[in-house]
Amino acid sequence: MARLAGVSRQTVSNVLNGRAAFSRDTEARVVAAMEELAYKPSRAAQTMRSRRTHQFAYHMAGEQLEAARGFTLSFLQALVKAAAREDHHILVFTHHGADPLPAFRDLIARRSVDAFIVDESRVDDPRVRLLAAEGVPFACFGRTAPDLPQQWVDVDNASGMLPLVEHLAAAGHRDYAYVGAEGGEYWKRDRLAGLRLGLERLGVSLADDRVFHGDDRAIRRWVTRLLHRRRPPTAIVTSSDAVGAVVVSSCQAAGLRVGRDIAVTGFDGGAVGLIVEPALTSVRIPVERVAGELVTRCLEEVSSGPTGRPGVLVPTELTVGGSA
Amino acid sequence: MARLAGVSRQTVSNVLNGRAAFSRDTEARVVAAMEELAYKPSRAAQTMRSRRTHQFAYHMAGEQLEAARGFTLSFLQALVKAAAREDHHILVFTHHGADPLPAFRDLIARRSVDAFIVDESRVDDPRVRLLAAEGVPFACFGRTAPDLPQQWVDVDNASGMLPLVEHLAAAGHRDYAYVGAEGGEYWKRDRLAGLRLGLERLGVSLADDRVFHGDDRAIRRWVTRLLHRRRPPTAIVTSSDAVGAVVVSSCQAAGLRVGRDIAVTGFDGGAVGLIVEPALTSVRIPVERVAGELVTRCLEEVSSGPTGRPGVLVPTELTVGGSA
Repeated sequence: MARLAGVSRQTVSNVLNGRAAFSRDTEARVVAAMEELAYKPSRAAQTMRSRRTHQFAYHMAGEQLEAARGFTLSFLQALVKAAAREDHHILVFTHHGADPLPAFRDLIARRSVDAFIVDESRVDDPRVRLLAAEGVPFACFGRTAPDLPQQWVDVDNASGMLPLVEHLAAAGHRDYAYVGAEGGEYWKRDRLAGLRLGLERLGVSLADDRVFHGDDRAIRRWVTRLLHRRRPPTAIVTSSDAVGAVVVSSCQAAGLRVGRDIAVTGFDGGAVGLIVEPALTSVRIPVERVAGELVTRCLEEVSSGPTGRPGVLVPTELTVGGSA
Repeated sequence: MARLAGVSRQTVSNVLNGRAAFSRDTEARVVAAMEELAYKPSRAAQTMRSRRTHQFAYHMAGEQLEAARGFTLSFLQALVKAAAREDHHILVFTHHGADPLPAFRDLIARRSVDAFIVDESRVDDPRVRLLAAEGVPFACFGRTAPDLPQQWVDVDNASGMLPLVEHLAAAGHRDYAYVGAEGGEYWKRDRLAGLRLGLERLGVSLADDRVFHGDDRAIRRWVTRLLHRRRPPTAIVTSSDAVGAVVVSSCQAAGLRVGRDIAVTGFDGGAVGLIVEPALTSVRIPVERVAGELVTRCLEEVSSGPTGRPGVLVPTELTVGGSA
């Protein structure tokens, strides 16, 4: 390259590294030589110089059954695309055994990535606590505890339910039930709270015996019994598309036409709702926008250090399928 | 570290890089100092020395709808785990627009990864042709053309059908139909060919009007009409769990109890088959073993150059759910 540009090797090195002063003409000749040779410095060499890997780590915590939920893959696809637009790659990693922290520590110690992206975060998540303590840039899909950096992007799960309730009410529904997945995560609580709020505004109550949480099998049993009550609900609102899919199948097994005899709704708006027949009416989480915000926040922290920015809520979108 | 070990900085560097001769005692003191300081060289520095990134690239080609299929995520999870066992990470990347090759070229030019893992490969896949031409280590989940390196791991889709047919025949089924996803990929052809072979051995024929390929919507329509024929089949074999899920739902919508009134089977054995109720009887692709073989093959090529090894077929497993 030095020969082609007609300059010394030291000059080429200076230009590539932005070291020392050199004339515009020299720079132009080196750049032209680089282009002619299609020279790209190795990522490792660039990293040694810039201390940037152009890689973000994504911790894949889920297990095989969650693969069925589809949402993780939709989110990961959006994340890979959002990072690519900023010339970054996503390093997917997992952990052995029960404790995810050693895998985080190893990536931090080796400076393998510039930042971490964490999803399915618990509010007080030990992974996030470690990243904050180590001063490593990160961004979470899901809220962080008040004493942690508010480096998160989330949706408002309660507010997201309101347009859905309005949609159901406009179709004349007055008798509701709610079915949720197990687990006390705040987003599950918020979705139920949003349903209750929406119904209160309509002057409709949701009796305790119309609310159920359980695994798929328990949900099937409960819904089947629910449908045989003297006065069954006309609309079943669920905590997620995955639960919605189970409820649709339970209603169909009981001989009901979903979307006509009974309304069923989901939450997430990912691919799972689309393979259900009829397609689920759902509250869509805009994964592209969430991923874009996460990448932007990571880039900001990488280039400028802690921003102290507050967390950001991204609006959900009502998607109307045939199920309600 | 040199101070702690009581040696010179040059000696520390020699020990870390395996350069020059040094005594056992010196090495032990440097290692003890490293451990005390929990020193880990940065990945970039290691890469500069060893020319190994300890990263494999995985090209995520699929689109959002495929997220529903679940299989890609099961495979990616298995891949991330298999790589982690060998102290490697998976760099997930995608491409813009119609042509995936520029994204491959960029990763190759920057030496960002040691090898590439390609799935959903077509037999004559331009991505694989590029990797072979550039002399970059790779391994494919799915066969490669005869004039390309046989760096692939696959299942025998035709043979995989045989135990499934035997299982159905043992349950007394004599009237079959086949429903497949659109597309002429060899694995889809092989699955149908395997069904035909199995049925021939039993002396059972599969009439042309009992075979259908289409998208989800077309499959629903066709199955609904099929079930209303004068003599409907008692068993519907499908090309994948995703198609199986659609067929199960169509049968249930027609008032049939799947697993009792009619048998439905899938192929893949991933998470999708488990959320269907009843769970799908299926031919399981052992993703853990496929991922392990892909990682092993990549490691071999990275350390020893082209091995010239033939492709490898991994056996499938019959999994019996409630659907057949």
